Amino acid sequence: MIDLLKNYSYLRFNNVKTNNIKQGFKNRGMQLESDINLSNEYYKIKDIAYIYKKPTPIKLVKVDYKKGLINEAYFMTPSTTDYNGIYKGKYIDFEAKETSSKTSFSLSNIHEHQIKHLIDVKRHGAISFLIVRFNLLDKTFYLSTEKLEEFIKNNKRKSIPLSFFEEYGKIIKMKFNPRLDYIEIIDKEYFGGK
Amino acid sequence: MIDLLKNYSYLRFNNVKTNNIKQGFKNRGMQLESDINLSNEYYKIKDIAYIYKKPTPIKLVKVDYKKGLINEAYFMTPSTTDYNGIYKGKYIDFEAKETSSKTSFSLSNIHEHQIKHLIDVKRHGAISFLIVRFNLLDKTFYLSTEKLEEFIKNNKRKSIPLSFFEEYGKIIKMKFNPRLDYIEIIDKEYFGGK
Repeated sequence: MIDLLKNYSYLRFNNVKTNNIKQGFKNRGMQLESDINLSNEYYKIKDIAYIYKKPTPIKLVKVDYKKGLINEAYFMTPSTTDYNGIYKGKYIDFEAKETSSKTSFSLSNIHEHQIKHLIDVKRHGAISFLIVRFNLLDKTFYLSTEKLEEFIKNNKRKSIPLSFFEEYGKIIKMKFNPRLDYIEIIDKEYFGGK
Repeated sequence: MIDLLKNYSYLRFNNVKTNNIKQGFKNRGMQLESDINLSNEYYKIKDIAYIYKKPTPIKLVKVDYKKGLINEAYFMTPSTTDYNGIYKGKYIDFEAKETSSKTSFSLSNIHEHQIKHLIDVKRHGAISFLIVRFNLLDKTFYLSTEKLEEFIKNNKRKSIPLSFFEEYGKIIKMKFNPRLDYIEIIDKEYFGGK
């Protein structure tokens, strides 16, 4: 148990380091990403679920292969969502986004092919969803792909109002451990509670 | 249908471009990676399975965030396996490696935490396995995590002989489309044939 905690502290430390590097790139999304990564580490250490963030794809231009040093490269658009893995035998897939709006979440924050991906994997039996944090309201929502599809089908507007999240989403609780317990929501929605 | 084929050609083209960039880095693994990526594109276009290669994780050192340009970065060790996704509602997870040996596959080609990952996700209900290609023999094998575990448990040697793959693995057929039909093996092993 002490080993587990040691390991956990180590991972937390590394996580913080990684975030510092990225901090300048875009502030939005970083705190949520850190919370989700910490939760995923917790789930993994406790042998509850194995869910990982995919690395950002990078287009390499100049590389010194002997040194393993990249001298010129660019960020690419991810072809799928950021997170996937397994929980209770089910394939889990989601995208996580933050917004500084107090009233709505703009769909321009998510690439169309990412929405398509969420729908595709859901059709094949995945538990797929969005995690959206309203930073200024301190609220983080789980929104199933089903509800996301419904919204897109029935609305012409390009942003989902907060009221839609309040009615059809689920609030994800912030805790000490796991930091952002989205597995609790999945348990309730798909496995009849704990 | 023509659209699908157009899309497929586009992806093939892009795939080749990506491989050219990486070719200098390590020749081993590139042809197999390309074959698997083409197969995954085929499965996706045909709505059979959604399986992706995770991007190589990269440690950023110097970045011009305004231009989105990376000036200094290094390759990192992946924390999980290279490929994962969903097929017939099942979580799929595997690592793919090539060897130029004619007689055995050295376990030093796979990181210990990657083997642990394959075992962890299998315990949680995943279909997890290795794909190993013997380049000089032109043979590509599927080896289940179960058989991999058995080998590690019962053997002190650090390399798996070809005879073990021949006895406990399955040959993955090369085809025109999909290039490397590993889903066919999964069908036989887990879903009682097609």
